[in-house]
Amino acid sequence: MFTYHRTVHYHETDKMGITHHSNYIKWMEEARIFLLDSIGLSFRKMEDDGIMSPVVGINIEYKHPTTYSDLIEIDIAIAKYTGVQIIFDYTIRDTTTNTIAATATSKHCFVKDGRICVLTRSASEYDSLIKKVLQGQLPSDE
Amino acid sequence: MFTYHRTVHYHETDKMGITHHSNYIKWMEEARIFLLDSIGLSFRKMEDDGIMSPVVGINIEYKHPTTYSDLIEIDIAIAKYTGVQIIFDYTIRDTTTNTIAATATSKHCFVKDGRICVLTRSASEYDSLIKKVLQGQLPSDE
Amino acid sequence: MFTYHRTVHYHETDKMGITHHSNYIKWMEEARIFLLDSIGLSFRKMEDDGIMSPVVGINIEYKHPTTYSDLIEIDIAIAKYTGVQIIFDYTIRDTTTNTIAATATSKHCFVKDGRICVLTRSASEYDSLIKKVLQGQLPSDE
Amino acid sequence: MFTYHRTVHYHETDKMGITHHSNYIKWMEEARIFLLDSIGLSFRKMEDDGIMSPVVGINIEYKHPTTYSDLIEIDIAIAKYTGVQIIFDYTIRDTTTNTIAATATSKHCFVKDGRICVLTRSASEYDSLIKKVLQGQLPSDE
Repeated sequence: MFTYHRTVHYHETDKMGITHHSNYIKWMEEARIFLLDSIGLSFRKMEDDGIMSPVVGINIEYKHPTTYSDLIEIDIAIAKYTGVQIIFDYTIRDTTTNTIAATATSKHCFVKDGRICVLTRSASEYDSLIKKVLQGQLPSDE
Repeated sequence: MFTYHRTVHYHETDKMGITHHSNYIKWMEEARIFLLDSIGLSFRKMEDDGIMSPVVGINIEYKHPTTYSDLIEIDIAIAKYTGVQIIFDYTIRDTTTNTIAATATSKHCFVKDGRICVLTRSASEYDSLIKKVLQGQLPSDE
Repeated sequence: MFTYHRTVHYHETDKMGITHHSNYIKWMEEARIFLLDSIGLSFRKMEDDGIMSPVVGINIEYKHPTTYSDLIEIDIAIAKYTGVQIIFDYTIRDTTTNTIAATATSKHCFVKDGRICVLTRSASEYDSLIKKVLQGQLPSDE
Repeated sequence: MFTYHRTVHYHETDKMGITHHSNYIKWMEEARIFLLDSIGLSFRKMEDDGIMSPVVGINIEYKHPTTYSDLIEIDIAIAKYTGVQIIFDYTIRDTTTNTIAATATSKHCFVKDGRICVLTRSASEYDSLIKKVLQGQLPSDE
């Protein structure tokens, strides 16, 4: 499991005085890229290799509102990986109010040169890295 | 069913050349407010009455990417209403590419003066309007 | 002069209850693309031709706050064009409160295949269109 | 002078492959709040005291594009303070490409309970803090 930290920015709040719910989707992306970078699967290198990993589904439950200046911790883990799809699990905690702000999952496929690809074949280097993380062979940050 | 129209803005795209997936969450809010306004349940009036309807859950499946200048149509309907929660269904179509871009649902509760409330009791006027829509007694825009 | 219309979205407000000031920068882009499309200088076609017009400077004065559901009208005109740079003038009006919300200018250069270019030489077709607008030979929408 | 650090997020890029220019306006707000927090003039406390400091003007020159994963350093200083208005100076550097990405200024007034106020009178505590920073009596972070 990896933990990504960030603070709620003023420009992320809305008229209700709380963080606008669309920002959690952006935070999940930030946490995902943080995890991938941490395991040596740099998003930038992937793009240079012509590989992209678009979002195909998101499921999020909002539990407690957060607001400007709250410290947020996002626990993120790879929940499932098939070579064709990867699913991430997220727990978004507000350490300022000591509450679970939201829980979520996101599902992604892999695209190479504009076409959906099987990572096992098209980018075995990435495939190995993800499998090592799942088997606990790569150090997580906790 | 109500249909909300809008165009993808340039500032909504990302480095992949497609609409960033977080924007769909904003579009869903726009469509929802459009529906509520259409049935006489103005979001602004609700706020004046101290009633808010925060998002408690979102489920979205991205099916085809959209991009800058694409014309988007969002079909939105009330899927379920219990007095405590309301669920909306969305079909997001890209009429430029003639594809289903995404399908989604969102779940909301009601809050009055900072506390979760039962709309049936706290705001019976709104409760009646929603029930009329569900029973087909209010004209939809299609 | 061209006039671009739009409504303030809920997700564009912030904790102060007003439109977050960064959104005006996005609205200016929307108005600019509207103007360019209106005179037949489609942003999309420009991109297909490898021409981009990045922002090199913005100057904006915020005069009256706007908020969710306000109707916005943006008057936009080409203030200056040199073949190397183009400057747009904006007056952002809130027709709901009947106030001038902001006035602004934006300055842009032209880039072809990643290098700054002189539009007169690199894309004379676009150069002619802009000159016609400045000379009043092309119909504006007002 | 204070220096605020952050990284460009993927969701901040656009179809040109670079950071969308509207995000710099958000970064400036982040840097401003960082400076105010650093000198003990917490934005949150200000809001609790009913004082807000809306933006009345922004001037920005974009010099070099930035993109996803670039490390950004924003040098920010109070350029002028009159009791009625405060002006901040910004130099936005991309330490990944070792370039000046942008330079900017922003102008702000003070509002108490919805009305423009003179900070000297309405909130002398804040007034003193700002004057101390200008006179070099408060430690900056560099």
